[in-house]
This record gives sequence, C-alpha cells and structure tokens, in this order.
Amino acid sequence: MLQQLFPLKGDVAPTPLADCQSQQDERLLRINRVGIKGLRYPIQFSNKSSQIQSTIATISLTVDLPAHVKGTHMSRFVEVLNKDGRVIEGQNLTRLVRQLRDRLDAGSAEIEIDFPYFIEKAAPISGQKALVDYNVKLNAIACGSKISHTVIVTVPVTTLCPCSKAISEYGAHNQRGYVTVTAHGEETIWVDDLIALIEASASSEIFALLKRPDEKHVTEQAYQNPVFVEDLVRNIALRLNTRTEIESYKVEAENMESIHNHSAYACIEKPVVSA
Amino acid sequence: MLQQLFPLKGDVAPTPLADCQSQQDERLLRINRVGIKGLRYPIQFSNKSSQIQSTIATISLTVDLPAHVKGTHMSRFVEVLNKDGRVIEGQNLTRLVRQLRDRLDAGSAEIEIDFPYFIEKAAPISGQKALVDYNVKLNAIACGSKISHTVIVTVPVTTLCPCSKAISEYGAHNQRGYVTVTAHGEETIWVDDLIALIEASASSEIFALLKRPDEKHVTEQAYQNPVFVEDLVRNIALRLNTRTEIESYKVEAENMESIHNHSAYACIEKPVVSA
Amino acid sequence: MLQQLFPLKGDVAPTPLADCQSQQDERLLRINRVGIKGLRYPIQFSNKSSQIQSTIATISLTVDLPAHVKGTHMSRFVEVLNKDGRVIEGQNLTRLVRQLRDRLDAGSAEIEIDFPYFIEKAAPISGQKALVDYNVKLNAIACGSKISHTVIVTVPVTTLCPCSKAISEYGAHNQRGYVTVTAHGEETIWVDDLIALIEASASSEIFALLKRPDEKHVTEQAYQNPVFVEDLVRNIALRLNTRTEIESYKVEAENMESIHNHSAYACIEKPVVSA
Amino acid sequence: MLQQLFPLKGDVAPTPLADCQSQQDERLLRINRVGIKGLRYPIQFSNKSSQIQSTIATISLTVDLPAHVKGTHMSRFVEVLNKDGRVIEGQNLTRLVRQLRDRLDAGSAEIEIDFPYFIEKAAPISGQKALVDYNVKLNAIACGSKISHTVIVTVPVTTLCPCSKAISEYGAHNQRGYVTVTAHGEETIWVDDLIALIEASASSEIFALLKRPDEKHVTEQAYQNPVFVEDLVRNIALRLNTRTEIESYKVEAENMESIHNHSAYACIEKPVVSA
Repeated sequence: MLQQLFPLKGDVAPTPLADCQSQQDERLLRINRVGIKGLRYPIQFSNKSSQIQSTIATISLTVDLPAHVKGTHMSRFVEVLNKDGRVIEGQNLTRLVRQLRDRLDAGSAEIEIDFPYFIEKAAPISGQKALVDYNVKLNAIACGSKISHTVIVTVPVTTLCPCSKAISEYGAHNQRGYVTVTAHGEETIWVDDLIALIEASASSEIFALLKRPDEKHVTEQAYQNPVFVEDLVRNIALRLNTRTEIESYKVEAENMESIHNHSAYACIEKPVVSA
Repeated sequence: MLQQLFPLKGDVAPTPLADCQSQQDERLLRINRVGIKGLRYPIQFSNKSSQIQSTIATISLTVDLPAHVKGTHMSRFVEVLNKDGRVIEGQNLTRLVRQLRDRLDAGSAEIEIDFPYFIEKAAPISGQKALVDYNVKLNAIACGSKISHTVIVTVPVTTLCPCSKAISEYGAHNQRGYVTVTAHGEETIWVDDLIALIEASASSEIFALLKRPDEKHVTEQAYQNPVFVEDLVRNIALRLNTRTEIESYKVEAENMESIHNHSAYACIEKPVVSA
Repeated sequence: MLQQLFPLKGDVAPTPLADCQSQQDERLLRINRVGIKGLRYPIQFSNKSSQIQSTIATISLTVDLPAHVKGTHMSRFVEVLNKDGRVIEGQNLTRLVRQLRDRLDAGSAEIEIDFPYFIEKAAPISGQKALVDYNVKLNAIACGSKISHTVIVTVPVTTLCPCSKAISEYGAHNQRGYVTVTAHGEETIWVDDLIALIEASASSEIFALLKRPDEKHVTEQAYQNPVFVEDLVRNIALRLNTRTEIESYKVEAENMESIHNHSAYACIEKPVVSA
Repeated sequence: MLQQLFPLKGDVAPTPLADCQSQQDERLLRINRVGIKGLRYPIQFSNKSSQIQSTIATISLTVDLPAHVKGTHMSRFVEVLNKDGRVIEGQNLTRLVRQLRDRLDAGSAEIEIDFPYFIEKAAPISGQKALVDYNVKLNAIACGSKISHTVIVTVPVTTLCPCSKAISEYGAHNQRGYVTVTAHGEETIWVDDLIALIEASASSEIFALLKRPDEKHVTEQAYQNPVFVEDLVRNIALRLNTRTEIESYKVEAENMESIHNHSAYACIEKPVVSA
C-alpha cells in the first residue's frame, strides 16, 4: 500500500541516508545548549517520604555542541529519556544527566523537569484531608564529571497586608500569593522541606478543602499574621539561612493583589560563594 | 529525478499560478467558519465617551464556505482588515464584517476582536488618577443581510467572603475576582456601562494607584459589602435585567480564592428569546 | 500555642457557626452553574484498551442553585471528588456526576475534566516506540435523571499546504496543527478512536521519536498528502459521519502557519437533532 | 455592631494613618528587588526610524530595599510611571529608571517593559504591505549612578530542516520558529537592527499577507535555505559578533517542530567580559 503511494521509490531500502548533523561546521561557534524543549512526559517522583507519586512533567533536555560539529541528534534525547527517565529522584536524575552527556558525546548536559506535585494535607480543625498542588522544577547539570542540582518550588500561600490591617477600622485586604524558591547545594534538598518552610512564613498556608470551622481558623490566623511581600521573602530567607544543605538560593514572592489588577513582587538572592 | 516527479513544472515559471482554493470540492460538506485566528493588530477604539484610544487587538476573521468550494482565500482577510480595520467602533465594525462577507463571496462572516481597554479612575479619597485595564472582546456576525453584535467585557474586582466574615472573630478572606459579561442586543451596548455596572456589584472596585487613605477606604468598603461569587453574578444579573438594550446575556464570575489554589465560579445566563 | 495566639477565643468550641449559604435569597434569580474551577488533581484514566494510566487533571465541578438559596457549599465539591474521583472512565464519571448532583441537593450537575493523555506509538520505519501526548476533556452533565456525556480531544498533526506545493518548483510550507473534536452521543465514544480518525485525516501524524528513515517517511508522506485546514476538517467530518455512536460534533482545526505569525482556522459543526 | 466585633480599636479613626512600611526591620536582610509586576499600560515607542507607535506594555518596576527598612511604598511606582512613562525610548527610559531610584530613595532601580511591536513589511513579489508583530522587552537598571540597558527581541521565522531535505525524495519539514535575542551594550541597540539581522539568518522571514506569487517565493526560498536550529543561532551569533554596539548577548531559537509535539531548541551566549 505504501508502494502504491510512492511508486517511484521502489521496494529496496534507500542506501544510507545522509547524516547532515555529523558534518563539519565552519562557523566555529560553540553552542552552549541544544536539544528538545516542551516535551510532556509521565514520570514517577519520590521525595523525602519516599512514597512514589505519578505525575506529568514538561521536560527540556540539552547538551553543548562543539564548534566544529554541525548539529546534534535530536532523537537520542528522547531515547535517553525512554530508557531511564520514568522514575525521577535525586540519584536517578544524576544517572540520567550523565547518560545524556555520554549518549550525545557532549561536554555538558542539562535536564529540566517541571511538574505538579501533590501533598495531602489535613484541614486545621476538621482534619479533613485533601490534596494541595505545588509546582516543582528539578534541574540537573553534568559539566564534565561535575554534577550540579537545583530545586525550584512554587507554593501558593495566603498573604494579608499589614498596612491595610493597621489603617482600617475592620478587615484587611488579603490574596493568594505564589512563592518560588530556587535552591542549590551539593547535598540533597527535599522538596517537602522547602514547601513546609515557605508555608510557615506566610499569613496562612492554603488548603484544598476547608469546612466552616477551618475557614474561621485560616481567616483569623491570616489576620493575626499579616505579611508584606517583603516580610514573606525575608521570613523565608531567614529560614533558608539555617539550612546547611542550601548553599545559594533565590526567593521570589508574587502577590496577586486583591485591590489591584497587578502583582506586588519581592526577591532576595543569596549568591553562590566562589571558593 | 525531481523533474520526474514534477514534469509539468519544467524550467519556466508556471503561468498563471494554480488556484487550488477555487477548485471544486466533492466531499460536499459546508464549512461553518474558515479564516484566520490569532492575528495581532494595532487598533483604535472609541466608546461612549467618544475619546479614541490606541490599543493592540488579537483578531479572528472567518466566513462560511459552500460545500462545493475547496478553499477560502486567506490573504483577503488581512486585506479587508488593512483597508478598513484600524478604527473599531459600532458602525465601523458593521461595515467591516459586511466587507469581509462580500470580499470573500460568503453567506456569513464573523469578526472577533479582543483587546485591553483602559479607563482612568480617580482613587476614592486622594483623587489620584491612574489607568485600570479591562479586557474587551467585540464580536460581529453578518449572516446574509442580518448583522449581530456581541460585547464581552472582563472586569477585575475585589470580593470578600460573607461566610468568612460571619464566622470569624476578625478579618475575612478576600481576593481578586474576574467577572465576564457577554451581552447581546440590537441597540448599542456601551463597554463603559457594562464595566460600571459590574464594579458596582462587587465588594469593591479595583484601582491601579491607592494612597494610604484610599487603601483604608477600599479595605473597609469591601468588609462592609461581602459577596459570594453567587451574590456577584446575581447583583449583576439584576442590573442587566433593567437595561433595555441588552436582550440576552451570560454573567460569569471567577474568584481566585485567597484560601485555596483553585477558583470559585458562578454563572447566570439569560438566553435569547425566540420570536 | 494556638491558644496564646488567639486568647479571646478560649478553649471551647464556638457555638454553631453561622451557615450563610443556606440563607434565603430574595433576588429570586436561579444560578445556572456554581462551583469550583481550576482544581488540579491526579486521576487514573482508562480508555478502550482498558489499560489504566495515571495523569494530572484540571477539574471543574458545578451545580445549579435554586432562586431562593443564597449559596452553595463549596467544600462538598472536593469531598465528592475525594470520595470517588480518582479513577475516571465512562461509568465512573456517570456515578460521579450523579453523586455531585445528590450531595449538593441540586437539579443539575456538571463535571469537566481536562488532562494530558499518552499513547505509545511506533515510528513508521524503525519501529522505535515513544509516547505522544494528546489533550482530553471529558464533560458529564446530570440534568435531573438524564446523563449526557461529551468527549473533547485535541490532537497535534502535520499539515502541508496544497497551494504552496502546487505553485512552487520545490518544497511546500507545512506546520504543526491542532485539531479539536468535540463529540457527543448516548453510546460510549472512545478517545482512542477519535485520535486515530483525526490522525488519518492529516498530511501526516506526529511522533515523539523519529530516526532518519522515519523522518524521510513522514516528510514524503506529508508531501504526498497535502491538506488545507478546510480539507482537514472535511476529512474528519466525513469519517465522523460514519460513526453511529457520534450524534453531534464540532471539528476545529488550527494551523500554526510556518509562513505567518497567525493561524489558519476552520470549523464544521453537526448540531444535535431535536427529537 | 462592628464596634462589638473590634472592641480593641476604638471608635475614632486613627490619625494620622500608620506608615508600617517605614518602620524598622530587625531581620536585617537586604531585599534585592521589590515593587510591582504585571501592570498593563499604554505606551508610545519610537525606534530607529523615529516614527512613534502606540502599543500596550506589561511593566515591572522594582527597587532594592535596605536591610533596616520594613517595606517599600508601592503606590509610588505607579506615580513615577504616570508622571513620565508614556513615551518609551532610550533617553526617556534612562530618565525613568533614575526617577524611580530617586523617588523610592533606593540604591538601585530596575524597569522591564514588554510589548508587541509592529513593522510594516512589503510582500516579496506583490509588494502588498501588512504589519508583522514582534515582541520587544526593554530592561533598564540604575545601580547607583550607573545605567545599564538590555534589549530583548522575539522574532517569528520560518525554518526548514536540512536533514529532512537531504534524505527525502521531495519536500522537507518546516515550521514556525521563535528567535529571542537578548543584547546588552553601552551604546544604543536598535530593535529594528536586531529584527533584520535575525530574519536574514532564517530559512525565510515571515509575513502577515502573502499573495500566491509571494507564497511561491517564500516556499522556494525556505527550501533553498535550510537551517537547523543550530544553524540559526550560529548565523545570528556571527552577525551579532560584527556589531560594535553589542557587548554581550544570548541567542535562543525554538522551533515548533511540524513533525513533533515538542520544540527543538538552541542557545549561544556571549558573556559580559569583566574589565
């Protein structure tokens, strides 16, 4: 049937197909990163509690390319992922980024895996359980034999404005905010630890299921713990500074202000200290 | 070898170029809408106040296609827009959709224009002025000689939860919500009127610039006017029911809950009454 | 410790908290749909092959609200989902939407579940397997005792322009397109069937992993099977018309044109025939 | 009744209103950036040709905050923008970022302005004119007395795969790609120059309006100029290396592959050389 569609090509396999990618390149410009981006892929993720959860990731895989090579081989990125990319945790991610570097004959390789992560939380008074969704991004770089890991977590929180509370007879504007912590270190950094640390720094943590006594509780708790976006990033930075496994970080908070149609934003960075 | 595949093309330019689109189609299926989508385009929009503002629209232009015609002529959609699409208001939109229908030899034509719209508002106490952004979508359909207009406005508002206020010792959770009203009628429906009507129905309207006395004012106003998402759509529907120019509508409200990572949503529809 | 934070509340449980939602409403406006929207939630989905896959859904759950009731009870939506929403297939979705209607004392209830769905496909020549991602949306409505199901699938495809091929000496512009089919019927409509039917109607189907012989194959196949966006929706509509389980449908195709920065779009609708 | 709820605050309005933001902060953590984000705002932009165009920007404005100060004054960011932010070009942006730094008593200030920008292009054969939309982002930083400018442009292009062309009997897969160049230097970098340089490096540039002879032209041109995503970033880097006004840059290209549902990606960076 295919023969009917392509009668001119005959039955025989074509003689070896040209490999453009392996040709010499004369522009002599090294490419820092080349590969695939935006690939959706089902993964299993396990964190501190070691319970495995199935989720859907959006994945980027890149390598560097020497100045004299024309192109990389895009299909190999998916092959590496298919071979060993279904389960994602610290050690496996190290193995995966090494395999990518080796399979593509590259000097460096980078993997970025972005996925929703769920934690079952009990409502504060009723104790009813429900899942809260967070965004997790894991980045691993193999540069020669050196492996570097970065963990990025985005956590929804409630923030209540201290100024609004202080100046108003009653009430205070509050809103959903999103905190993103980018943390880097040589030891394992647990996603669950970062989430707990962020939630403890806001006016209130967020839940998926709240009965009336729970709603009363979180309303009053937020009112008792007003934080500016500045307070939020400082509270988090203070806590991050006590963690020995975190060497450098960036804390960003964005409040979807309930009184404006734009966000309030703050950021504290602790840079990598060169040896 | 390429010559074998394309014997008719030879060395000389084919003259005239084949017009595939005008060929007969034998599947005998009428196409309801065909055209272009997602075209960004600078327009000028004038509303009730007749003051013209420059903005950037995302535009869809479609026509129907008879069962026996293979394809439409995509370049003509942009030509119609270029000829007469820079200024958008009621009468001009009617002219534009008629031109589209005529230029494409179609039975019906539809235009959808989506753009940010700005209103300068004075803060409630300080009187300081700043621009608030809204989303406006205008839809015009020419079906034969009949022209039909729909106006869709999305308005950011503050909503404060009546339940949270009632059960809590102090405070009440509140958040930014987005209300979308889709309004249809034979007379002109002014965007400014819809926005005013929506803002009057929420716990508080939203501003881009608030000094401290203003922030006190909107905080207290929201606390004094709690609305569920259900109240919000009902308040708006009540007001829409008094407008003679609005024959049918849909009111949707979505609260970006400050205590959850999901939205609360409500919708009231008043359908078109058939004659 | 909580007592220290909230000294005014004492140790005893507050006397029954006000239930604002159950109050009478005097605006006398029925709400068509009220509930929660944008809730992310891990589900398991099984289709025709009955193999279960884990994925992450974005979920809306709504009910109608009688004119005399002030508000719905938002926490119950999540409770219904938690109780029976982890596994999603036809029968279970029917049960879920009935439970939602009953738990909320509503006349009608609606569930919409949107998630990525994966099919392992073998590359056409090398046979190498990899996962392709599709978007699936399942909608179920319980209106009184009547249950109605709608399946919506979005499928990436390759489209190659017949006009560009016909008028050019060599080559033809082609691009990724997205086809969305919304299908409704009383019998079960399998997602896999819709995907196969859509992929067979394009210039070529899409793969996640193609070796060079595969790339040659899909390039030539697309060149041999040029389709306008109009052809694409007609090819699909022809096939849908032969399926007895599909009573009404909408086919939409959007080509992310490689020669423009906007899309070409076409749509055919087969409406519900009233009895 | 409200008084009963809030007995601790008394009846009288607090005068003057507390200025929480100006309080001392004892956490002693400097904040790198704090301000507003996601503000939509109409601006006028003029580039090399000095013709002014009206467009809609999304704007971020931030400053640093000393360790001993509790909060910034969010309303002042909008005040600075309202006073002098309507017209955006090089000199005015310098003035604006200085005013922001001064008005907020900050050591450093940063402005980021993101907007669609339009160029009228004539189709290559018919000469018909239409607007193509690009994305421009301007970043200005005032750090003490030092001002630093960065220009970021995203340009849609056509890319045709060299491998697909080489191995296939006829045709070659091609697609829309997006190139983003981030360019930094002390002299003025013109947006128009960057766009021209990027478009010259792709298989073909993109148009909004093409008649049949134009479509033939761009189809054949793309087939004659195949580029991998690697070629694209190298072609652009070569050209950027000849520009004396550009001291450092990042070139990123993302192809929305027509044969996959993910992107091909490449990036070349030329870092800032420290003095």
